[in-house]
Amino acid sequence: MPYKISLIGAGNLGWNLAHAMSRHGQHVQQVISRNRAHAQELALQINASFSDRVEELDPSSDVILLCVKDEVISELASRLNLNRQLLAHCSGSTGMDVLSKSSYRYGVFYPVQTFSKQKLRDSMEVPICVEGSGKEAEDELFTLADSISNKVYRINSSQRLHLHLAAVFANNFSNYLYAIARKIADESHLPFEILKPLIMQTAQNVQDSEPLHVQTGPARRHDQKTIQKQLELLQDKPELKALYELISEMIKNEFPR
Amino acid sequence: MPYKISLIGAGNLGWNLAHAMSRHGQHVQQVISRNRAHAQELALQINASFSDRVEELDPSSDVILLCVKDEVISELASRLNLNRQLLAHCSGSTGMDVLSKSSYRYGVFYPVQTFSKQKLRDSMEVPICVEGSGKEAEDELFTLADSISNKVYRINSSQRLHLHLAAVFANNFSNYLYAIARKIADESHLPFEILKPLIMQTAQNVQDSEPLHVQTGPARRHDQKTIQKQLELLQDKPELKALYELISEMIKNEFPR
Repeated sequence: MPYKISLIGAGNLGWNLAHAMSRHGQHVQQVISRNRAHAQELALQINASFSDRVEELDPSSDVILLCVKDEVISELASRLNLNRQLLAHCSGSTGMDVLSKSSYRYGVFYPVQTFSKQKLRDSMEVPICVEGSGKEAEDELFTLADSISNKVYRINSSQRLHLHLAAVFANNFSNYLYAIARKIADESHLPFEILKPLIMQTAQNVQDSEPLHVQTGPARRHDQKTIQKQLELLQDKPELKALYELISEMIKNEFPR
Repeated sequence: MPYKISLIGAGNLGWNLAHAMSRHGQHVQQVISRNRAHAQELALQINASFSDRVEELDPSSDVILLCVKDEVISELASRLNLNRQLLAHCSGSTGMDVLSKSSYRYGVFYPVQTFSKQKLRDSMEVPICVEGSGKEAEDELFTLADSISNKVYRINSSQRLHLHLAAVFANNFSNYLYAIARKIADESHLPFEILKPLIMQTAQNVQDSEPLHVQTGPARRHDQKTIQKQLELLQDKPELKALYELISEMIKNEFPR
């Protein structure tokens, strides 16, 4: 039996989850978004009803998924008054208990991936971490996640906070390093194209190997001459220079001579 | 007409270049390495002669490629006494002119990629940057690079230094962020597997989009509450905390409110 689902939020995450669930046999029967046009567009694509008011939540839904920004989860939850329905948010950095006053059964459904509306993802490859207020709630969230992904994990709120922190380093901060690389290339009139295969390969290498085992570069080999030359190139960019020095020190400490 | 090539150095880079050139119709006729066993193993694979002494360099070679560590290029070059032969090193962070006393024709042949002996790369996708001491030398290096890669660029020594710096951010430092993410995951008994698809997707996103356009995360949206929570998780790790604060500040400055 498919779950009947109401999905609140029609941003990148909600968009991808709605499509993934519809494609894999779940019944997303309602899309709710503050932005009525977004709710309508998504609802039409997956043959659901739509609304721009949470007060119009379909009472027949089994599961309500909050696919909204972290900062509004708590306020939104406080406007819901559920009973037997399973309520879950999708945030890596929000505790489960912000939902405890809104329903008897609640939990977290956290997909560890970045999404965009432009390219819908193959959800089977997206790891999903679930946690439930009780065994039954967690089992249901597991079953729902398992229907759209091959990689479902049960993790608790403390683990999830750390996982989200790890994801900030692996995703947000890595992306910013790419932005820095792009700026350095631009300033020397070098096409960013030159660096793209290297960026892909760097990510590829840690799919099969330990990151520290494939660490290379001037800091890894304590090559002070190259480090000094590179710091000179950064001498009128104090923040970048500080970042270069800090990461290089950390890498050197990781590999004592 | 294929170039007759002597390749000095049988590490990851030399190994990949030797195979790529042989496969694409060049004639790598000699492999020289301090490590005689490595020279022999590679030479056998590509049907070349081998030696462990640069003094035994084959005088009939058209091109001599130095695929050795940065710190030994200069010393090695000083032991060569060439004439019409084209001498090139493969280093991103070494000036061209360290070769000026060793030959009348010299230059740089810099592949922008990481290599391993275990997995030989499809060289056509590897960007190669060339620079020559004169137009003729540069044209020859371009022709040679063009025979094994679809992406050949003429860049000067100053550009190359900046490119190498950009590569350190995009490759070495990104890899170290993956290592940090792995450690954080390990400490909470979370499998690193959960983060691998996210790492691939982050690299994939900048293949088609500007890194700054796809920047996400707490710092991007000035979400101080999440930033504070994450800093608390790092309170007994002062270096990591400093790194988190520095990158977060830089990202926030990039996107003023």
